[in-house]
Amino acid sequence: MSLDKTERGNYFEDFRLGQIFAHATPRSVSEADAALYLALTGSRFAVNSSEPFARAIGYRRAPLDDVLAFNLVFGKTVPDISANAIANLGYAECRFGAPLYPGDTVRARSEVIGLRETSKGNAGIVYVRSSGENQHGDPIVDFVRWVLVPKRDPASPAPAASVPRLGEVVAPETLTVPPGLDLTRYDRALAGSRFGCDDYKIGERIDHRDGMTLEEAEPALATRLYQNNARIHFDAFRARAQTEGGRRLVYGGHVIGIARALSSNGLGNAFHIAAIDAGSHVAPVHAGDTIYAWSEILAKSDIAGRTDLGAVRLRTVVAKNRPCADFPFKTGDAYDPAIVLELDYWVLMPR
Amino acid sequence: MSLDKTERGNYFEDFRLGQIFAHATPRSVSEADAALYLALTGSRFAVNSSEPFARAIGYRRAPLDDVLAFNLVFGKTVPDISANAIANLGYAECRFGAPLYPGDTVRARSEVIGLRETSKGNAGIVYVRSSGENQHGDPIVDFVRWVLVPKRDPASPAPAASVPRLGEVVAPETLTVPPGLDLTRYDRALAGSRFGCDDYKIGERIDHRDGMTLEEAEPALATRLYQNNARIHFDAFRARAQTEGGRRLVYGGHVIGIARALSSNGLGNAFHIAAIDAGSHVAPVHAGDTIYAWSEILAKSDIAGRTDLGAVRLRTVVAKNRPCADFPFKTGDAYDPAIVLELDYWVLMPR
Amino acid sequence: MSLDKTERGNYFEDFRLGQIFAHATPRSVSEADAALYLALTGSRFAVNSSEPFARAIGYRRAPLDDVLAFNLVFGKTVPDISANAIANLGYAECRFGAPLYPGDTVRARSEVIGLRETSKGNAGIVYVRSSGENQHGDPIVDFVRWVLVPKRDPASPAPAASVPRLGEVVAPETLTVPPGLDLTRYDRALAGSRFGCDDYKIGERIDHRDGMTLEEAEPALATRLYQNNARIHFDAFRARAQTEGGRRLVYGGHVIGIARALSSNGLGNAFHIAAIDAGSHVAPVHAGDTIYAWSEILAKSDIAGRTDLGAVRLRTVVAKNRPCADFPFKTGDAYDPAIVLELDYWVLMPR
Repeated sequence: MSLDKTERGNYFEDFRLGQIFAHATPRSVSEADAALYLALTGSRFAVNSSEPFARAIGYRRAPLDDVLAFNLVFGKTVPDISANAIANLGYAECRFGAPLYPGDTVRARSEVIGLRETSKGNAGIVYVRSSGENQHGDPIVDFVRWVLVPKRDPASPAPAASVPRLGEVVAPETLTVPPGLDLTRYDRALAGSRFGCDDYKIGERIDHRDGMTLEEAEPALATRLYQNNARIHFDAFRARAQTEGGRRLVYGGHVIGIARALSSNGLGNAFHIAAIDAGSHVAPVHAGDTIYAWSEILAKSDIAGRTDLGAVRLRTVVAKNRPCADFPFKTGDAYDPAIVLELDYWVLMPR
Repeated sequence: MSLDKTERGNYFEDFRLGQIFAHATPRSVSEADAALYLALTGSRFAVNSSEPFARAIGYRRAPLDDVLAFNLVFGKTVPDISANAIANLGYAECRFGAPLYPGDTVRARSEVIGLRETSKGNAGIVYVRSSGENQHGDPIVDFVRWVLVPKRDPASPAPAASVPRLGEVVAPETLTVPPGLDLTRYDRALAGSRFGCDDYKIGERIDHRDGMTLEEAEPALATRLYQNNARIHFDAFRARAQTEGGRRLVYGGHVIGIARALSSNGLGNAFHIAAIDAGSHVAPVHAGDTIYAWSEILAKSDIAGRTDLGAVRLRTVVAKNRPCADFPFKTGDAYDPAIVLELDYWVLMPR
Repeated sequence: MSLDKTERGNYFEDFRLGQIFAHATPRSVSEADAALYLALTGSRFAVNSSEPFARAIGYRRAPLDDVLAFNLVFGKTVPDISANAIANLGYAECRFGAPLYPGDTVRARSEVIGLRETSKGNAGIVYVRSSGENQHGDPIVDFVRWVLVPKRDPASPAPAASVPRLGEVVAPETLTVPPGLDLTRYDRALAGSRFGCDDYKIGERIDHRDGMTLEEAEPALATRLYQNNARIHFDAFRARAQTEGGRRLVYGGHVIGIARALSSNGLGNAFHIAAIDAGSHVAPVHAGDTIYAWSEILAKSDIAGRTDLGAVRLRTVVAKNRPCADFPFKTGDAYDPAIVLELDYWVLMPR
């Protein structure tokens, strides 16, 4: 008999602690990814929009958006890790390394660092540490994520539970500044915001104000650009039978990208994401939803040896179909029903 | 107290005559902008589609579409000028200079050249002259536009009324031909039309025939590509409460781009827009509308010292949801209710 | 009187046997076409996604997707051949030549090789052989297609019927391998499939499993990217009056592209389409439909002098709004009502 050639992805019982995946389909990126990303998200950070601006502060050229780099690496991991996932539960310990430049080629690998069967026994949580690197082997971004994956056979035995100990916050003294950066020539007027690191106060809240509606075609285009082939995002025929109102589930990483783009209103000089401490997709976003976001300054930190820039820790809270001028968040442990994403991360800003 | 970081844009009382804005977010363009523009508009002008064609007539390489250049410059001006605008009322004195090439970086500035409170007193008209330039400081396109902007406080006092005197037509002897052009090698067969300057007669009318439907996602992608962040185009949640049938308003500059693309059927050798004399968005276009257009030859002019090309002045009339085989326009001063745009402009064509 | 400038395309009585069209609007392609194509189709073939992968097996650089090359050439032919076509009936004798690389410029020509009036007498079938070449004159792809074209005047006389004799299958010994290829360094793990030529058995069937919904905006963007300006794909206002449920007809060539992209699940190492033997659009696809596909191995062939690769002949069957796990096809001569496309073609795979 011939082997079945159709890839059906892994189920919970297919994963082993310590298992390593070298993910398929390396991806060369170009200026076209920058333009498409701009068209898909409306990002306005000057460093990703202007070659002269990026070069003036020491980038070799305009880097691709950090969330695009994250989503490209994430996309590579999907066929092996989350093709059958029920939900993408969380992220931690995400660090950005070398900037991703047009002309680079992204490859990705993942290691299974935790496994835990759910109490119902028909699924389990898979923890993986995924890392992306460029054609020189330089790390671009690595992160831990955990996903809820069903069992193929609900009766298959549970593996020994193993839950990795994950940092709650990336220590600011470990943040990486892209090599060669010198922000003394950073032009705030060109960047569209006069506020630097020192202008933000811990506890300050910022309404990013604008809303962005995600029509069916837009997240579909974006998710294919990321080469994330999780079928749930593409198959409206099945979605009509399975999801609320028949609308397709929007890939959560694209919601992060939209939130980052919206955040330029109020955080226009947060030119680089250095790390993501934690992220949770609290509720699903479906095609047709409109995304709003607000942020709170959680902490600030010097970067050793640098007077030109500093790190700011942000919590960005993302809502659907609800403007955020009044900063909706939680009542006790319960999220406001409009909240879809909570993201805790470090950005670099000029001082 | 910390300063509020959220940008809310300017209101009528924030503008001063003579005020100058150096707009934020310079934008480097690439071949990706050409491909995306083609995918968004369906433009078929050979000069923007083919490197060898463009080089054969003296361009350094295939330039980006003129309306794309206009929309990129316009987009830069939005955060300062029209973030809160109620309507974009008109354009005048628009001149195209250096071609915009992949690899260039666009910057823009505007000067307030007129202010007039409306009779109701709760808003005013702001006239600005905006100009875009490339990284060498060469002018790409400059134009006057006027927009209706609400007051933040309806009780704020009116400024002295000042309405600029604007030319009705750009004088053809002042039109700029991109440097280095020599149309003796212009290949009409490759361009898809056998008609040159001398084949068109003043008063002649041309039905551009094809219709182009603007689905929600398409103008949204285009408007983000132009980095025009006027929220009215992106937020369907608010639009559902505010606009007819809940459909989002389409950015008028994109309607100009669609009309220009449609015009290649009948004006296939109008390879360059040299100037826009006047433009009015007569009625709104909403997502889902289908755009049709027709043109009339208003005038023709020699270009001093050139036998290879001439200038043709066109009126292009754009309608929604109504084919234009019978050339709908005005009855007396009243536009046909289907008309959305009237554009008066000069194109260059081979002779 | 001035000549009517509006192009209305050719009708059946405008075609003559042996007539040659040098099609307009040459098209320079770039990396942006690769990125947009990926965003529009979700293709995952490593050779089109990764520069190092493509170079490792002897391509000068990552080639554009073969179906994109086909659709670009097809698009050029539309204004002359099928602007008024009622239906695109079939393809034959399609051979791929030189890879299409970013930086190339595509031109196309067609020859009328057959004409036959329909029995009703108000239309006819036009057979054309179309060929696309790059800026060096190297053939990229050539193919025969036949289309049903209405008469302008139903009373115009029938031409002598002439139906070309077309090969049913491209002989495998005539298949072209792109020059310079050496698959000894082909990395199956990176390509995402461990199956080579020798792992597939004649008669084997493969469910490509994933579904891809084509929202209105997506085929419209793709079809404009191909510069196919057949108005039926763009004008929803007219479509509402003419097609089922008012949804626009999706360009059949884009359905081929989606099917090819879906086929990477199960045929991940089918890195190149060498020829298309036959193709029929059995039923229309409209915006909003979800596409599924399955394939059968029809034949295999050695390539003379090569041990690194072989040819596999496939039948890919494409359905709308119906998953294909049970391989729907025909009952007798009657297609399952969900089937929209049957494609018979040769791919190259590593051995």
